[in-house]
Amino acid sequence: MDLYIGNKNYSSWSLRAWLMAAKSGVQFNEILLQLDTDSFYQQLKAISPTLKVPTLVDGDITIWDSLSICEYLNDTYLAGSAWPQDPKQKAKARSIASEMHSGFNAVRNALPMNIRASRYVELTDAVRKDIERIDAIWSAQMAEFAPSNAEGTWLFGEWSIADMMFAPVVMRFITYGVEVSQASRAYIQHVISCPEMQAWMSAAKAETEIVAADEAGIER
Amino acid sequence: MDLYIGNKNYSSWSLRAWLMAAKSGVQFNEILLQLDTDSFYQQLKAISPTLKVPTLVDGDITIWDSLSICEYLNDTYLAGSAWPQDPKQKAKARSIASEMHSGFNAVRNALPMNIRASRYVELTDAVRKDIERIDAIWSAQMAEFAPSNAEGTWLFGEWSIADMMFAPVVMRFITYGVEVSQASRAYIQHVISCPEMQAWMSAAKAETEIVAADEAGIER
Repeated sequence: MDLYIGNKNYSSWSLRAWLMAAKSGVQFNEILLQLDTDSFYQQLKAISPTLKVPTLVDGDITIWDSLSICEYLNDTYLAGSAWPQDPKQKAKARSIASEMHSGFNAVRNALPMNIRASRYVELTDAVRKDIERIDAIWSAQMAEFAPSNAEGTWLFGEWSIADMMFAPVVMRFITYGVEVSQASRAYIQHVISCPEMQAWMSAAKAETEIVAADEAGIER
Repeated sequence: MDLYIGNKNYSSWSLRAWLMAAKSGVQFNEILLQLDTDSFYQQLKAISPTLKVPTLVDGDITIWDSLSICEYLNDTYLAGSAWPQDPKQKAKARSIASEMHSGFNAVRNALPMNIRASRYVELTDAVRKDIERIDAIWSAQMAEFAPSNAEGTWLFGEWSIADMMFAPVVMRFITYGVEVSQASRAYIQHVISCPEMQAWMSAAKAETEIVAADEAGIER
């Protein structure tokens, strides 16, 4: 199985699919393509109709969207265990994962993922509104699943596709020093202490390529 | 089961969830809230954390995103039959449904759903690029599933969640007279001839409320 991803420092959608593959325990080859280069498009041309990462190629099956890759791996290799098993929790997990997948454009545009950086960005009202909603989601889940645990936990106790969707947001909030509730800080701490995230973050910090469009804000 | 939706003329996300519920054959109460009114927010406040439609309430389960509603109905009432059963086709259907769910922002912003209108809008390069990609998806699926059928068919032969995601795009292309391939025109024709779509469109055309933000373009 081949997973095509972009630069680990910048490619937020790649992180979602890669983390899912890594958490799943499936064997996969990681093929890292440098964003914004000719070779990126050359190599993707034969594989993905959208010329975007992540793209997963598993035998004769190709999937070119991060949520679809998560659903595919869950269906095919995890017997559905990457969603909560309780129907009510599953419905909630799907709703918040989809909310992330289709929304939060203000945060995504104003605070590009840039793991190795530490920046300050002036927050617009639209960005603040997105942050408030994300903070509310994380806080509510911590209140339910880690009420007395300062270390935090996954959004539904066990890791799920919902956490995969929010992993790049965790990275963004750290880079731009976004202030959130204590419960949300515990969630952030839990996510970044996971070994697969540690591995991704180390690799991201070792990268030296610059994607100018994703360099926002001023140094803190 | 209660499905909260917005005005049928304008609410593109509502159409996706409503069409899925209607095609599923499940019994549901449709609760239509007028977009952009105080009563809209008042009624949603107790139900949906995002104050957006569609929201589905099924007993003690609440789902507040259109793709999640589709997945929920498919899981709970259709034993998974709303995705193609072949794993390769299912992966493709999921990829294009997700592509729609998270993307095509240029089309969504420039060509708001406005079923009863017939308009002309100057297309930017970004909008044209989105249209090209959508046209390519529809054309390829018609070539595979309705190669000699001038009437067109669903994207994967049988209806699937992928069709639900694209239904509002069909409406947009009609409103703004967007030019697409013959195969894509056959798809459009197939979608609008489905009885559930006919019912939605009739109701949309009977509505008289105006949402100014969604009134784009000049009369054709």
